[in-house]
Amino acid sequence: MRSIPLRGFDQQMSSLVTEHMESHGTQFLRGCILSRVRRLPDGQLQVTWEDQASGKEDTGAFDTVLWAIGRVPQTRSLNLEKAGVDTNPDSQKILVDAREATSVPHIYAIGDVAEGRPELTPTAIMAGKLLAQRLFGGSSDLMDYDNVPTTVFTPLEYGCVGLSEEEAVARHGQEHVEVYHAYYKPLEFTVAERDASQCYIKMVCLREPPQLVLGLHFLGPNAGEVTQGFALGIKCRASYAQVMRTVGIHPTCSEEVVKVRISKRSGLNPTVTGC
Amino acid sequence: MRSIPLRGFDQQMSSLVTEHMESHGTQFLRGCILSRVRRLPDGQLQVTWEDQASGKEDTGAFDTVLWAIGRVPQTRSLNLEKAGVDTNPDSQKILVDAREATSVPHIYAIGDVAEGRPELTPTAIMAGKLLAQRLFGGSSDLMDYDNVPTTVFTPLEYGCVGLSEEEAVARHGQEHVEVYHAYYKPLEFTVAERDASQCYIKMVCLREPPQLVLGLHFLGPNAGEVTQGFALGIKCRASYAQVMRTVGIHPTCSEEVVKVRISKRSGLNPTVTGC
Repeated sequence: MRSIPLRGFDQQMSSLVTEHMESHGTQFLRGCILSRVRRLPDGQLQVTWEDQASGKEDTGAFDTVLWAIGRVPQTRSLNLEKAGVDTNPDSQKILVDAREATSVPHIYAIGDVAEGRPELTPTAIMAGKLLAQRLFGGSSDLMDYDNVPTTVFTPLEYGCVGLSEEEAVARHGQEHVEVYHAYYKPLEFTVAERDASQCYIKMVCLREPPQLVLGLHFLGPNAGEVTQGFALGIKCRASYAQVMRTVGIHPTCSEEVVKVRISKRSGLNPTVTGC
Repeated sequence: MRSIPLRGFDQQMSSLVTEHMESHGTQFLRGCILSRVRRLPDGQLQVTWEDQASGKEDTGAFDTVLWAIGRVPQTRSLNLEKAGVDTNPDSQKILVDAREATSVPHIYAIGDVAEGRPELTPTAIMAGKLLAQRLFGGSSDLMDYDNVPTTVFTPLEYGCVGLSEEEAVARHGQEHVEVYHAYYKPLEFTVAERDASQCYIKMVCLREPPQLVLGLHFLGPNAGEVTQGFALGIKCRASYAQVMRTVGIHPTCSEEVVKVRISKRSGLNPTVTGC
């Protein structure tokens, strides 16, 4: 792992994700950069990496290597400078404004190619639809990049929508942010006696009543299925008060979201107390 | 089965639930009333029932019998008439108003014992909390019984919140209701080559823009997890326009909800077209 796991995501949630993987046998080497992979005579793959802190090299042999190299858009071959379209020379991504317009106002860029956009297909699809509606449908609706839900399909799934706790504090200040949280035990974990130590929910809200919900973070089974509907709620400017007025569906994991009553500020124990 | 399956629920959804069960081997005998169960010498249970239409009796032998006899509240033993608390003599349930007050204004009834209330524990819990807040917390918030989400844990789960199509038409008139719907194929069904004929979503909206969502009906895996968040959205008075502006989480089943684009009125084919 070169830098930190799930960069850009809420870091508490990210830690729980890796903690869960570590407890199930995944070993993380942090601050390491892969330098080469070589096939050994017995067919295995010998991987060499460098520890950035110590500068030392190390190797290991593996059956399978999946090397996540990241994505770089192929903008250099487009001759964009001839058209006057500006890019970020580091990321090679195209600079855009809230209307998806580039530095040339009648040239637009949407999706992964645009600087600062989430690299998510459904986001690009919606941004494209909204752009078409603005260009040809008389609309003025802009894409809302703050409330894009997504899910990381780690062994314990992590679904989120809206701001991370770090972002919320950066934007609004610690004093104006209230974070509600809870550890919970999925019913299916109870039956199978599985460890639910990392099943955790965090709701980031404005502190002033009715406490507008800024972000929701859910770690547990079926996180994608759970998160989608709450993304609609947050788009409709749901408040914590409205979350608390939503009746739960029993027994589900998602009902735990409408039951998060303990704030971090209170210092009370957020570990599971009931079924 | 005495009357109809899932009485009180959207009847199109209910039909799909039983269709799915029938396609997996469950046999329904409709309009029949159980009269007795007798243990046979070999340990099996002989069940006798009467077909209400023909008046004919029939029997069958089974290994296990689960007899759903319904629930009747034990109000007769409470001597309610001495206090002047009115009940419905048929259901034996207590008559209440929107404040949960009985015919004696300082006596309240919540939960399954109250006439016309959904027989759901989380609903009773919330009604009780709101009542306590009104009585002792200076609140005037009433329980919202229209937007209680629930899930029927049939083999193919059915989650719903808000009005059924029948209820929406009865309240607002056919001309003022727009129903969006879609058949979809869960990704996990694709891999296992399972039949997804009954995986179906229906969103019942007001027809006038921005088309307030009146009810959501979801049939498919993890319906409870999917439905909970949308219940918050509907509580926040989500419109169909807002649903369409919510970015999907790919790949999930719940993203299909934010993609329902075909109205029943259009007559277009709502069967699955993509992945």
